[in-house]
Amino acid sequence: MPTEKGGGASALELIRRWGADAVRDCDGTALPSELLELGLDVYSTICLVRADEEWTRAHPEYWPMKYLSTTPAPAFGETLEIPLLERLHPLKYEIREDLATPSLWQVMDRTGELPVPHGKWVYDPAKKAVRVLGACPGHLYSVSFLATVAWDTTSMYNHLTNGWTRERVRSVDPYYPEVWNYLFEYFDNWLADHPQTTIVRLTSLAYHFNVDFDHDCRDVFRDWTGYQECVSLKALDDFEAQFGYRLTPEDFVDAGRNNATGGVPSARWRDWMSFVQRFVLRFGRELCQRVHRAGKRAAVFHGDHWVGLEPFTDNPTKMGIDLHIGAAEDGVALRRVSDTPGTMAKELRLYPYFFPDVFREGGDPLTESRGDWLKIRRALLRRPIDRIGWGGYPSLALKFPAFCDWVATLCDQFREILDTSGGTPALDIPVRVGVLNAWGTPRAWINSFGRDQKFFEKRTDVVEVAGSNLLECLAGLPVSVRFIAMEEIRDGVPSDIDVLINDGDAFTAWSGGDLWGDERIASAVRSFVAKGGGFIGCRGPTADPTSDRFFRLADVLGVDYEDGRGIQNVPVSFSIDRTHSLAASANSANFGIVESFVFPRTSATTVLASAGKHILCSANVYGEGRSVYFASLPYSCSNSRLLLQSLVWAAGRESERIPWMADNPAIDVAFFPTTGRMIAVNSSNDTQSGTITLPDGTERNVSLPPGGQEMA
Amino acid sequence: MPTEKGGGASALELIRRWGADAVRDCDGTALPSELLELGLDVYSTICLVRADEEWTRAHPEYWPMKYLSTTPAPAFGETLEIPLLERLHPLKYEIREDLATPSLWQVMDRTGELPVPHGKWVYDPAKKAVRVLGACPGHLYSVSFLATVAWDTTSMYNHLTNGWTRERVRSVDPYYPEVWNYLFEYFDNWLADHPQTTIVRLTSLAYHFNVDFDHDCRDVFRDWTGYQECVSLKALDDFEAQFGYRLTPEDFVDAGRNNATGGVPSARWRDWMSFVQRFVLRFGRELCQRVHRAGKRAAVFHGDHWVGLEPFTDNPTKMGIDLHIGAAEDGVALRRVSDTPGTMAKELRLYPYFFPDVFREGGDPLTESRGDWLKIRRALLRRPIDRIGWGGYPSLALKFPAFCDWVATLCDQFREILDTSGGTPALDIPVRVGVLNAWGTPRAWINSFGRDQKFFEKRTDVVEVAGSNLLECLAGLPVSVRFIAMEEIRDGVPSDIDVLINDGDAFTAWSGGDLWGDERIASAVRSFVAKGGGFIGCRGPTADPTSDRFFRLADVLGVDYEDGRGIQNVPVSFSIDRTHSLAASANSANFGIVESFVFPRTSATTVLASAGKHILCSANVYGEGRSVYFASLPYSCSNSRLLLQSLVWAAGRESERIPWMADNPAIDVAFFPTTGRMIAVNSSNDTQSGTITLPDGTERNVSLPPGGQEMA
Repeated sequence: MPTEKGGGASALELIRRWGADAVRDCDGTALPSELLELGLDVYSTICLVRADEEWTRAHPEYWPMKYLSTTPAPAFGETLEIPLLERLHPLKYEIREDLATPSLWQVMDRTGELPVPHGKWVYDPAKKAVRVLGACPGHLYSVSFLATVAWDTTSMYNHLTNGWTRERVRSVDPYYPEVWNYLFEYFDNWLADHPQTTIVRLTSLAYHFNVDFDHDCRDVFRDWTGYQECVSLKALDDFEAQFGYRLTPEDFVDAGRNNATGGVPSARWRDWMSFVQRFVLRFGRELCQRVHRAGKRAAVFHGDHWVGLEPFTDNPTKMGIDLHIGAAEDGVALRRVSDTPGTMAKELRLYPYFFPDVFREGGDPLTESRGDWLKIRRALLRRPIDRIGWGGYPSLALKFPAFCDWVATLCDQFREILDTSGGTPALDIPVRVGVLNAWGTPRAWINSFGRDQKFFEKRTDVVEVAGSNLLECLAGLPVSVRFIAMEEIRDGVPSDIDVLINDGDAFTAWSGGDLWGDERIASAVRSFVAKGGGFIGCRGPTADPTSDRFFRLADVLGVDYEDGRGIQNVPVSFSIDRTHSLAASANSANFGIVESFVFPRTSATTVLASAGKHILCSANVYGEGRSVYFASLPYSCSNSRLLLQSLVWAAGRESERIPWMADNPAIDVAFFPTTGRMIAVNSSNDTQSGTITLPDGTERNVSLPPGGQEMA
Repeated sequence: MPTEKGGGASALELIRRWGADAVRDCDGTALPSELLELGLDVYSTICLVRADEEWTRAHPEYWPMKYLSTTPAPAFGETLEIPLLERLHPLKYEIREDLATPSLWQVMDRTGELPVPHGKWVYDPAKKAVRVLGACPGHLYSVSFLATVAWDTTSMYNHLTNGWTRERVRSVDPYYPEVWNYLFEYFDNWLADHPQTTIVRLTSLAYHFNVDFDHDCRDVFRDWTGYQECVSLKALDDFEAQFGYRLTPEDFVDAGRNNATGGVPSARWRDWMSFVQRFVLRFGRELCQRVHRAGKRAAVFHGDHWVGLEPFTDNPTKMGIDLHIGAAEDGVALRRVSDTPGTMAKELRLYPYFFPDVFREGGDPLTESRGDWLKIRRALLRRPIDRIGWGGYPSLALKFPAFCDWVATLCDQFREILDTSGGTPALDIPVRVGVLNAWGTPRAWINSFGRDQKFFEKRTDVVEVAGSNLLECLAGLPVSVRFIAMEEIRDGVPSDIDVLINDGDAFTAWSGGDLWGDERIASAVRSFVAKGGGFIGCRGPTADPTSDRFFRLADVLGVDYEDGRGIQNVPVSFSIDRTHSLAASANSANFGIVESFVFPRTSATTVLASAGKHILCSANVYGEGRSVYFASLPYSCSNSRLLLQSLVWAAGRESERIPWMADNPAIDVAFFPTTGRMIAVNSSNDTQSGTITLPDGTERNVSLPPGGQEMA
C-alpha cells in the first residue's frame, strides 16, 4: 500500500479493505505515523543517485553523461552549421562544451560513413553549433557530442504527466569515486534515519534507462533497457584499459540509432554493457550489504535507474537482492518478473498508478485494471509471483469506489491462486519452447516491438501494441519457455528444446537481423527441424536478404517475403487448406494484418489463412520436422489457442490428448502438481462455459462469469 | 481490320461501319478474296522464325534455348536429388541432356552462393534430375541447366486461352547460319507468294519475350522485354570472342530472378543484351531489305518475337522499319508507341482482341474498350500516333452490336483528333520532366510494376495494376517527358530537366536499387535540387539502405521509410498542412495505400496527407529546390491533377497561370500550335463541365457527356 503525506486515513481504509500486509512511503513523501503503528512491513523507497538533490545541484561535474547526435544535414556549400540541440529538450541536456575535442566528439560524413578529419570542424559555443569547414556539397554531416543529463528522466516525466512544478531532479554518476564515497555516507545516514523501515525499496541502482525528449516534451528515442546514459570520462578510460580498445563516439550514437535494444547489438556494444554491468553489480552489492547490515531487507524496482540490474542474470543474487519488484500491465510483464532466476521473493506493481493522469474526472481506472489483470492472471497461473502492490496516492483511489471494490476482488483472486497453487508452477504439457533472438535470456520477456509501435497512435479505440503480440499469447500457455540467443545455437539447437520461435520484424534483434548471415546458425536450425524439431516464425522471421531469398530460412518456413527484388517471379497459386489440424483455428483467427507480401515458396507449403494472395498463416513439413508461419499474432484468447495448437503440431504431438485443457479458448486451466489442485479462469469479459478434459479422460464442465475463477 | 478464313462478309461489314483503310490476314489465316478487291492496304502477317512449322519440327537442334534453374532445395544428408522440371511445363521445355556438362550447366550451393565443383554432381536422364554428391547437410542447392523451348509462348498462350488444339508451334533460332539461310530463302518465296500484300507485318523478329509456364499452365515468370530465350552455343562462343569473357549459367539464372527487367541490370547482362541487339539489328535489316526489294512496306509489331527490336533506340530506323505497331490498353502503352524516335508511322492495336476469351456469352468487350480508350485518348492528345487497328475474328465482334457501335464512335473520335491536331503534339507547359531509373530511355514507358503486381488477384472489383500508377497519370499531362538512366546523371543532372521523378518499389530497376550506392549519382540529385530543381519520389524512391537511412535521398525527400532498424527512433509528430498550395488536391486524392511506414525526417517536412502516422503525401524545401513524396499514386483524374500541380510546384512555377487547363480535373484540354486549334475531352464516365483558361486570361465553358470530346 502506497502512502502519502497527511493521507494516513485514506491508506488505512484501503489497507483494511484490500488486506494489505505492508506500507511504503512514496518516493518523495514520508510515512504517516498512524500507519507505522499497524505493525506491517514498511517499505521505504530510495534512489540513492538522486537522493540528495542539493549536493547533486552543487556538483554538475558528476551528473551522468551520454553521447547525442544530430540528424544528418546536407552541405549545400563548403561550410555547414549544425545546431546540436535542434530537436532535443534544452533543459534535459547540457552540452559538455569543455569536452568539444576531436578525441571525444566526432563529426561524421554520413554519405560515406567517415569521420571528418580534426581541424575540419569547430564548435561555436555562442550558437551551440558545430561548423564544418571544407564540406563536400551534396554530402550529409552529423555531430556526435557529449552532453550532461541535467534533468532526471523520471522527474521530467512526472513534471509533464502529473504537472509537477517543483525543482527538477538530477542524478549523479556513482562511477566517480568521490560520488561513490559521498553517496554511501549519505546512505548510511539514511538507513540510520529509517529505524521502522523493514524493506529498503531501491528505485533502483546507478543508471537511468533512456528516454530522450524534444522541445515539446515528446519522446524522441526510448530504450527501457538501454545503456546510453552511463558515460563518464573515467568509465571510457577504464573500459579501454579493461578491453584493450577505446570506444568511439560512433560506437555510442550508432548512426543515430543509439544501440537500441530492438537493434542487433554489436560486439563493441555488448562489451560496453558488460563493463557497465560489472560496475552496477559492485554498486548494488554495496547497497545490499549496507541494507543487510542495518537489519533490513533489500528490494529492487525494475525501472527508473535499473540499467545494469539485469534480472535474468545471476547478478541480483550476487548483489543480495531479497525482493524483485516489477511493474506489470500484461502477462509478458508478469513473466518478466516470475521467470527471473534466484530465490528472492517477487512482487508486481500493478497499474494504474493512483496518479491524476488516470484518477481524474472522467478517468476509468477500473477498465484499465480489469483488462490488465485478465492478461496477468493467465500468465500468473503458469509461473507464480509472491506479492502484488500499487503506487500513488490512496486519497485519489478512494474517489473511485467501484475501482476500490474491484481491487478487493482482485486481491481475493490473487490470494486464492496463491493458496491453490501453493506458490508453485502449473503443470506444463511436454512441449519445450525456445524463443530465439539476438539477445536470448538477458532480454527474456522484453516485448519484441516492431514497426507498428513506431507508427502507433494512442487512441482509445485501438488495441495497444504492448500486450498484443505473440509473446502475450505465449505468456499464458502451459509450455516451458526459455529464451535463446542465436550465438548459443551455432553448434546446434539444445536437445531440451522441442520448438523454436523466431518472432520479430525484419532487421530487428527480435528476428535476429544479420546474425542469420552466420551460416552455422541457419544450418543448425535446418538440421534441428529436419530431424524432427519444430519452428514457428512470426512477422519477419530469419529475415536477412540473400541473393535469392528474403527469409534466410524460407526453405524451412515454406514461405518467403517479397521485398521488390523478385516481383517478376510469380508465386505458386494456392487454396486454403481446410483439412489440416490447424485449419479450423487458423480460419477463426484474426491476424491483424492485410498485406503481408508473403508468398508460398513451393506448392508443398500448406496455406492456412490468407488475405487474397498475401499469406497470413501457413504450415510446412521439412524433413522430419514442421514449421508454422504467422504474418502477425496479436493477443486474443483464440489466437493463443492457435499458438498452442501450432506448438503441439510443430512438435509432432497433435495426436496426443492434452489434459487440463478447456474446449473453450477463453477459459484457461492450470493444474498444480504440488497441491494436486486445479484452477479455471475466464480470461474474457463475457460469461463463458466449457468442458475441461482431465488426465483420465473424464470431463468436467465449468461455467464462469466474466473474469471469474473457480478452484477444485 | 483483321480478317478470318471464310469471314469476308463480317469483315466487309465492319470495314464499312468503322471506315477501315486496310485489312490484314491474321497469323495463321489467309485473306478472303472479296476483301482483296476493295483496294485497301493489305497487311500480311509473318513471324519468320515460326513460319515453316514442318521444317522447324524436323530441326530440334535449332530450337531456341534458355537457361532454367530449380528452386533451391535443402540437403538433409550427403546426397540430394533435384528434379529439373518440378515446376515447369514439360511440353514447353526439353532438357538439353546432351549439354549436361560442367562447362554448360552449373549446380550452386545457394547457402554460400558457390558453384558445386565438377565431379560432385551427376545428371540422371532416367529421373530427369541432378544428384548432388557430398552435399553439406543444411545447405541449399539449385541446378542451372540448358533447355530447348519446345513450344512457342504465343502458341501455348493461344492453346490455353482460346482452346486451340492443333499441333503446337515452335520457333527456330536464326543465329545458326543454316537457319538464317533457310529462313531467308523461305521469306523470298513467301514475298513472291503475296503479290497483293502492301505491308508486311512482322510479329516480330528473332526472339520471343519470356513467359514460363508451370504444369498447370500458369505463369511462373514473365518478362515482356527480357532477353532470356536467345541462347545458343554459337552465341555463347561469339559473345566470349566479342566481349573477352564467357557468360556463366549463373549470369543467366541470376539466383532464380532471371535478370528480370524489373531488377537492376548487371553489367554482364547489359553486355548480353547489346550482343543480342546487334544480331537482331542485322536480322531485322535483312528482313526489311527483302520486304522493300519486293516493293512492300515493313511493319513491326511490338510483341511476340520482338526482343532486341528496342523501339526507343535508333535500331528500328537502321533496320528500315516503316511502321511501328503496338498493342495499347492505356495511356502508358500509347506513349510507348507515340514517343519512339524515328520518322516511321505509328499504329495502335487496341484491346480487346476479337477472341473468345472476352467475346463470349456474358463477356463485356464494350466496357473494356471504353475504359482503355478514355486513358489512351488523354495520352493521345499529348503525343500523336497515325493509325489504330484491331485483331481477332470480325464474326465474333459482330455478335456484340453495342460494341460495334461504340467502335464506330471511337474511330470517329480518333479521326477528329487527327484532324484537329494535324498529327502534331500538343503544347506543353514549360516544365520538363525526367523519369529517373536504372534503364532510362530504352525502357521508356514500360510500367514500373512493383510488389502489388505480384500479389494482384484478377478480380472485377479491383482496379488493374496496369494503367493504374503514376506513369499513367503522367502519360496525359501537358509536360515534356523523357526517361533518364541513373548512370547518365553521374556528372550532373542534364540542364534541360526541371523536375526528376523517381517512381518505383524499393529494390527494383524503377527506383534504382543499389545504383544509388554510387554517391556521385546521389550527390548529383542533391546539387540539382539544392540549386532549384524539383524531385518527385513515389513508392520506394532512392531506396538503398545505408546505416542511417532507407531512402538514400531521405534528406531531399524530407521523409524516410522504416524498415525495422530504427523502430525506437520516434518520428517527429506532425499535423496535416492545410495551407500549402498542394493541400487541397492532396486532401482529395486517394493514394490507394494505408500503411506506408514512411515518417517525416525532421519537423521541416510538410505533410499533406497521411493515414494515422503513415505519410501518404508530403512536400519538402531543399536549398533552392523542392521535392514531393507520394506513397503511391494510382491513376485517376484527380490524382493526375495532383501530379501536375506537384510538378509545377516542384519546378517553382506555382504562381504562374497555366493556359489550356480546365478547372475540372476530369476534363483534359490540348492546344495544338501547328493548327491553332484545341480539343477538350471528358476522361470520365460521368457528364462533366468546367471552365478552360485561355492564354489571354479569358475563359471558356465546356460541358461534355461521358467520354465526350469537343473541338474548337
